[in-house]
Amino acid sequence: MTQDERYMREALKQARKAYALGEVPIGCVIVYQDKIIGRGYNRRNTDKNTLAHAEITAINRASKKMGDWRLEECTLYVTLEPCQMCAGAIVQARITEVVMGSMNPKAGCGGSILNILEMPEFNHQVQVKRGVLAEECTQMLTIFFKELRVRNKLEKEATKERAFSEQIPEKKKEESVEMKGKMEYNKT
Amino acid sequence: MTQDERYMREALKQARKAYALGEVPIGCVIVYQDKIIGRGYNRRNTDKNTLAHAEITAINRASKKMGDWRLEECTLYVTLEPCQMCAGAIVQARITEVVMGSMNPKAGCGGSILNILEMPEFNHQVQVKRGVLAEECTQMLTIFFKELRVRNKLEKEATKERAFSEQIPEKKKEESVEMKGKMEYNKT
Repeated sequence: MTQDERYMREALKQARKAYALGEVPIGCVIVYQDKIIGRGYNRRNTDKNTLAHAEITAINRASKKMGDWRLEECTLYVTLEPCQMCAGAIVQARITEVVMGSMNPKAGCGGSILNILEMPEFNHQVQVKRGVLAEECTQMLTIFFKELRVRNKLEKEATKERAFSEQIPEKKKEESVEMKGKMEYNKT
Repeated sequence: MTQDERYMREALKQARKAYALGEVPIGCVIVYQDKIIGRGYNRRNTDKNTLAHAEITAINRASKKMGDWRLEECTLYVTLEPCQMCAGAIVQARITEVVMGSMNPKAGCGGSILNILEMPEFNHQVQVKRGVLAEECTQMLTIFFKELRVRNKLEKEATKERAFSEQIPEKKKEESVEMKGKMEYNKT
């Protein structure tokens, strides 16, 4: 296992914490001189805060640890290509290198929609590696969204049923229960 | 005074707090239903944290106040065009409108280097107004950078003098003091 893979596994550990909370599973670690100085995972819905992305949390912790807003000579590992906010924070913090797992073709700003990390117009450019443990990172997201779709479908059905049963007046409900009993009886 | 100018003045009040700390004077307020729900000013050097930009602080406070990561129907007022991180955070928080004072042609991402706020590729686009109280916003920045240049120049000179005096051996220093005394004496 390469060093990049080793740290991406640590980022995946963080992503699993997000998954356990029912959040989109994204995890991140920041490494300085072969030590992790910041960890983070997505908690946007749990914390009800846009800033609770994995990378922002990790940058916040790393800055506190380093006592500096500059995170020079640091490498950030993240399981999914960063969004526009996180890619921007990475450049602002002057992080030297970013290693990412999955790409995010619909919203990513580390090469998909934009490449904020390597723009020559800014005063800092980040070195970028893509596709480290991409399969594992993608798989975790795929499973999450598949389960989410099932959950959403079940919730929708439950809401529909609730709305339907609330519409039926009490008398009708009793009749309907009777009817259902009869139907069930007929089935046996 | 228009409503936009009124709130931009509130953002300028925040910027003055940054100025008082010797930070680049940038201030921000977020308004919801004609009430300020988040304030922020630049504290990057003071807090030693990249996330201590005016807009990020204001978004953090507004999210806590609203109990939601979505800041829909909110207007963000900021004295300087946002950077890539802050413009990204504004889109991520789904803020409806951004009103800015000065533009930042070298680094701004609200129309200068990039226009992250209005990109059709993202799932949210922000309405943008530029140039509200631009003169006052720019003036505050101009004064700050002018003073900073003077301060830096004085510090550089002081450092040079210190280094020079440390290089002179003790004996030479005594001679130099004597010599200086003589010269001063000659002047009178």
